[in-house]
Amino acid sequence: MNKFSVSDPSALSDAVHGGDRRALARTITLVENRASEYEAVMDALYPLTGNAWRIGLTGPPGAGKSTLAGRLIRWLLEQGQRVAYVAVDPTSPFSGGAILGDRIRIDSKAQDQVYIRSIATRGTLGGLSEQTEAVVDVIDAAGFDTILVESVGVGQAEIAIAQAVDSVVVVLVPESGDEIQTMKAGLLEVANIICVNKADRASADTLVATLQQAFSQVGADSDQTVPAIVQTVALDDGSVDELTAALSHQRDVLTDAGAWTQLREARFERRVRTLVTAAWAARFWTDERRDALERALSTMDVVDRMPYAVAHGILETGL
Amino acid sequence: MNKFSVSDPSALSDAVHGGDRRALARTITLVENRASEYEAVMDALYPLTGNAWRIGLTGPPGAGKSTLAGRLIRWLLEQGQRVAYVAVDPTSPFSGGAILGDRIRIDSKAQDQVYIRSIATRGTLGGLSEQTEAVVDVIDAAGFDTILVESVGVGQAEIAIAQAVDSVVVVLVPESGDEIQTMKAGLLEVANIICVNKADRASADTLVATLQQAFSQVGADSDQTVPAIVQTVALDDGSVDELTAALSHQRDVLTDAGAWTQLREARFERRVRTLVTAAWAARFWTDERRDALERALSTMDVVDRMPYAVAHGILETGL
Repeated sequence: MNKFSVSDPSALSDAVHGGDRRALARTITLVENRASEYEAVMDALYPLTGNAWRIGLTGPPGAGKSTLAGRLIRWLLEQGQRVAYVAVDPTSPFSGGAILGDRIRIDSKAQDQVYIRSIATRGTLGGLSEQTEAVVDVIDAAGFDTILVESVGVGQAEIAIAQAVDSVVVVLVPESGDEIQTMKAGLLEVANIICVNKADRASADTLVATLQQAFSQVGADSDQTVPAIVQTVALDDGSVDELTAALSHQRDVLTDAGAWTQLREARFERRVRTLVTAAWAARFWTDERRDALERALSTMDVVDRMPYAVAHGILETGL
Repeated sequence: MNKFSVSDPSALSDAVHGGDRRALARTITLVENRASEYEAVMDALYPLTGNAWRIGLTGPPGAGKSTLAGRLIRWLLEQGQRVAYVAVDPTSPFSGGAILGDRIRIDSKAQDQVYIRSIATRGTLGGLSEQTEAVVDVIDAAGFDTILVESVGVGQAEIAIAQAVDSVVVVLVPESGDEIQTMKAGLLEVANIICVNKADRASADTLVATLQQAFSQVGADSDQTVPAIVQTVALDDGSVDELTAALSHQRDVLTDAGAWTQLREARFERRVRTLVTAAWAARFWTDERRDALERALSTMDVVDRMPYAVAHGILETGL
């Protein structure tokens, strides 16, 4: 019934590269489900990637990310680009990707220039980063010029997703002062652009001043690049010019002097390292070793429960 | 100058167990800094743990967690308990633990019954869970009866911290409907108690009904335990009776039929497994292998960039 057999990775990969939407959707589903075939398909696809600019869009609920994404998609379409939008949506009985279609309104004429998808991810943060990267690779191989990756939050998950993209936009609202205080380590540090949306509200200038102050200290202390801080009003055709200007500048910076290639190579290297480490760990934890560990612990005296000594003992003896 | 030498783990551990506050603070700092000596100190301390009830308190900024924690501390003190409060605070230039002292107001007479500490954690989520657990172990060994562990957020980090405790309270406010939609997978699932604070506001009943509805579906589909859903008004001596009643019930459930012991054994086993896996991974990634990987990737043709094939190749040949 299906044209594309997962048992023929190169045919599926060719169909994705040729622009077939059903092949694209099917391959992303393989990644979501961590189907056993997906490694071979990703290997076939990876050499076809490298065209797309990957932009992460993150921030707290209610910051207006989806409205902003809609504006950015229109801006990119006007430049003749093919644009994809991916919402990363960790699986939960309390959430679901079904709302996505309603949130981004695209002119029907532009439908074949745009691809919109919500993905469910699972497992550890390492897995979140890797799955997101794999999905974006599939879309990249399908020939899209720019891929927007949205995630909702200001936590470790968003930092993991930031590792999978080229440029990171953190979207805040004037009322986000509290969120800045509780943002997880590193999210603002990995931002290339901080966008204060709904900037027509009274306290926007205060937040911008706070951010500029914070980064003026950070910039003096370290080599860290200071992000651009911009203001937008995404709703009702307010101005998003500062954001689009900052993104254009970002793209120029990436294109210059091989920065883009370096980013991609670093990402490939990190990915291979992560995959090797995971496979290496899986090799240790055979069923026999898991069982043996459980047996050893269940008969252990309380005074012998020393976590590091026990761990080193297991490693040295191989159980 | 210091009475407690980190080079004598058992003396330091005895001082912690004997109730010495300076030894306690110093040992926690060892854990925060991942000082090389901390493994030996933790091994000496671990067999002295097992007395404390560990309660995680998590939820979005502004939910009133600290006010609620203050009320819980008073409630526990009235029962004659020794109580510790730990705020887990991922390192960031934009946050800091200094505000903690102001937030929890404790009667000065109770000072020696209470220990309050903010900890900075680093690195991966696995590390977050492990470091939090190690800090709580130190406090447990020091003889505290109940340890409240607060973290701010509704993301993966909070799920990691939930693994380090016996009971999880997720604190929401009536306006948290949106947050529930975007909560990371698993946080509500690991909750033993969901506490709707500021329940004197109009929409509290709506949120409670939404939660009850959501869990009535979950409960029917799986073996998952349905959390207690309670309402509180922590500020201005409003009622927190529903929460304290739910916690008392939780404690009874844990005490019954060895549930507490099982939780601890499962936690010890997971911890040993995590430590073994980390040590095993570190053993693979020697400096030589890191360098060899970088060299291999830098000379690799684009068509050979197949992440899974490259990873398997590295693992099989050992580079």
